[in-house]
Parts: sequence; C-alpha cells; structure tokens
Amino acid sequence: MADHKAILTRFFQDVWTEGDVDAIDGYLAPRYTIHHDPGDPWDGQTLDVAGFKERVRQSRAPFPDQCFTIHELIAEQDKVVATWYWTGTHMDDIPGFPASGKRIAMSGMTVYYFEGDRIAGHWQMTDRLGVYQQLSRHASKT
Amino acid sequence: MADHKAILTRFFQDVWTEGDVDAIDGYLAPRYTIHHDPGDPWDGQTLDVAGFKERVRQSRAPFPDQCFTIHELIAEQDKVVATWYWTGTHMDDIPGFPASGKRIAMSGMTVYYFEGDRIAGHWQMTDRLGVYQQLSRHASKT
Repeated sequence: MADHKAILTRFFQDVWTEGDVDAIDGYLAPRYTIHHDPGDPWDGQTLDVAGFKERVRQSRAPFPDQCFTIHELIAEQDKVVATWYWTGTHMDDIPGFPASGKRIAMSGMTVYYFEGDRIAGHWQMTDRLGVYQQLSRHASKT
Repeated sequence: MADHKAILTRFFQDVWTEGDVDAIDGYLAPRYTIHHDPGDPWDGQTLDVAGFKERVRQSRAPFPDQCFTIHELIAEQDKVVATWYWTGTHMDDIPGFPASGKRIAMSGMTVYYFEGDRIAGHWQMTDRLGVYQQLSRHASKT
C-alpha cells in the first residue's frame, strides 16, 4: 500500500500536474476504466494507453498550468483514495466558456484501482458546480 | 476497520436514509467537524450532537424519502471512505427551487474520520452540479 501511495503521488505530479504524457507508459495498466466520473467526456469508457494519453492532452489543454495538491491518501489492498485540491488558469476554450485567463480552483476525490503496480481505473467526484460558477462569473464580465 | 465499516453502513441506513435522529446518539463523537463539503451550509463548522441532529433534520427535509446506497467502502486506520449513490423525491422548497415532486439522483464520496467507534467528522464531494441540472430542468417546465 505504501508503494501504491508513492506511485500515485508521482502519477499526479508527472502526468496531471506537469503534463508529461510519455510518463504514462510507466504508470498505466494496458486497459484503464473510468468507472464513474460525472462530467468527464470519457465517463464509463475503457481506454488503452494511447487513448488515456489523448484524454490527458485534451483535459489539460484549457488549463495548461494546472496543479494538483494531494490532501490525503487512504489505501486498502489494491485501492487508493486521494482527496485533492486543484488550480489552473483558463487559457483555452471550453464549450460555452471562451478562454478567460481566470484562475480557477477546484477540489475533488478519487478512488484509484491498481493491478499490481499499475493503475487500471478510477471512480471520481469533482466539484464541477464550483468550476461552473467561477467560469460563469467571469464570462458575465466580458 | 471491519467494525468501522459496519458502523458506517448502519449510520448511513439509520440516520441518513431512515432519518432516525435519535440514533445519532449511538454513532457520533461529542464534536463532529465538517472539514470540507462544498455547498453544505455547515461546511467548515464543528457541531455538537444537538447541532448535528439539526443538520440531519434540515438536510433531509426537502427529500424526506431519500435513500443512500453504498457502492464501496475503503478503510485505513481511523478513516473510512464511502462511495455512494443517492435518490430522493423533491418534496419541500430549496432556495431557488420550490418543491417539484421530481425524483432526483446523485452520487458522491466521503471520507469519515473515527475516534474509537465514534464518527467525528468528514471530508466530502457530492455531484451538486448534477442535482442543480435536474432541479433546473424541472423548474423550467413549470
């Protein structure tokens, strides 16, 4: 479990914060399932490594400086739960929200499922209403 | 940890699904802290048992038939994470949303913090955008 926590901490940093898509090869299982993730365009899908890389590229594009800060890690057997905070600058268009340059903050939590030392999927909740409210306030000013 | 999971399963059922406010005496620590719960009116507060009972009464009032279904429990030391689904019928007013009679569905996940066999707080994310969208769709029909 300690290993899983260390792997997941590096995965957040390398892949989601720094956007090192090549690093995904070292973390992912051959198939990665998004079991539950309301609002995520890939919710319910199982991706291969190439598909996951594309998901990371597309997800990070509107917030290229995004940064995840892990709050807590809770592990049991092959599952690790992360609670986290996120910030990013809205630098590219999202449907309904043209690039605004606004700093957005969000929190969320995720169950990650491991297969050995590889990450094979997740079940996630993010505070997407909070993001929507921050983007809307900005959009109404332009 | 097995005990914590069993306690938490009964807590969900007795308190949040069935609304048995008296049962709270058997579950709660003397002080209960809502560490993080965006959109919850008590976010950031520490409540005594009487305050927690009032929170349950007020939270359940708009959805008196609400039902939680636990999806997974993940435990480490004094923490238990629950992923869950929720349904309820919108029978009383919420600010901005008069009672609609609509069936609403939601998902969420929560870290519960135990002190011995007592529940002393939580860190939670709920899909409040999903609820907002369901309530808004209904409101626009009336």
